[in-house]
Amino acid sequence: MERNELLEQIKPRMPEKRYIHTIGVMETAIMLAEKYGEDVKAAETAAILHDVAKYADEEWMKEIVKTHHLDARLLNWGSEILHGPVGAWIAENEFHIQDEDILNAIRFHTTGRANMSKLEKIIFIADMIEPNRKFDGVEKLRKKVEKDLDKGMRACIRHSIAHLVDMKLPIFPDSIECYNDYFFEEV
Amino acid sequence: MERNELLEQIKPRMPEKRYIHTIGVMETAIMLAEKYGEDVKAAETAAILHDVAKYADEEWMKEIVKTHHLDARLLNWGSEILHGPVGAWIAENEFHIQDEDILNAIRFHTTGRANMSKLEKIIFIADMIEPNRKFDGVEKLRKKVEKDLDKGMRACIRHSIAHLVDMKLPIFPDSIECYNDYFFEEV
Repeated sequence: MERNELLEQIKPRMPEKRYIHTIGVMETAIMLAEKYGEDVKAAETAAILHDVAKYADEEWMKEIVKTHHLDARLLNWGSEILHGPVGAWIAENEFHIQDEDILNAIRFHTTGRANMSKLEKIIFIADMIEPNRKFDGVEKLRKKVEKDLDKGMRACIRHSIAHLVDMKLPIFPDSIECYNDYFFEEV
Repeated sequence: MERNELLEQIKPRMPEKRYIHTIGVMETAIMLAEKYGEDVKAAETAAILHDVAKYADEEWMKEIVKTHHLDARLLNWGSEILHGPVGAWIAENEFHIQDEDILNAIRFHTTGRANMSKLEKIIFIADMIEPNRKFDGVEKLRKKVEKDLDKGMRACIRHSIAHLVDMKLPIFPDSIECYNDYFFEEV
């Protein structure tokens, strides 16, 4: 689907601020795809759709998880964790995306997971460092990503877990597998 | 087994400093058992034996894991994670401890896990806050434990995960299940 057509379709699903964030993720993901040799069109599509479920009703998302047999662990979690996997389901079923790598990049953009593909890393990172993000330490993350995609990814998942512990928020187990991945990749 | 007999048997297995730590854990665990209504003798035994494998050879511990079919995930981890489960194996097989709660308190004293028993929490906490521990924030943890065992446990596992992320060290998945436990206990 063309970029503008896709953007037009996701725009009514989110507030203006989230749409601006989505544009930021798209631009960052395209830049990273060019820099690190990933399919630019795939990065663009995954980025535009990554938050398509962000404002979907939580109970509706849980119904989707049940009815379509998504990961059953999701039923214990809120929309912060649900919107990735359910977003991938929407991308596949409403937007007819068939590329499994694009779907996984949407699916795991919040939690990360072990053995992420390059596209998955690009979307996870772009979501965290796009130009509208303002948190303490974001500039340091941008510099790491600029130097090396894997070291950047490692810094981003560390930041994400430290932030959750600091805020006393639960941590989806896939995020720890993603974090641990960087210690055991040589095993 | 009598306290002194047990202490005599573990003393040659560790350096002086670790033995002093063990005495500190024992005294703290007894105090917490009295305060929170746990079996004092069980707390004493688990505390004395909790680090019995701390200085065991890593390869030997991995052989124990393989031969006796302990949790296979342990084979990817170092002695910091191995010494709890292997310590429980030693307690059972060399010290003839049969009380499963004591064995679990030894087994999970470093990582924690979901649904910990009161004795497991007491040993985990005592290991972290015994009087010889000096790290930043330990006084705050002691105060929380003094007020409420569960809130104290929650603060201890948060501290442990934050410390690991800060030090760029891997996190055993059971620790995250332990941490998440405090968000989902009402589900």
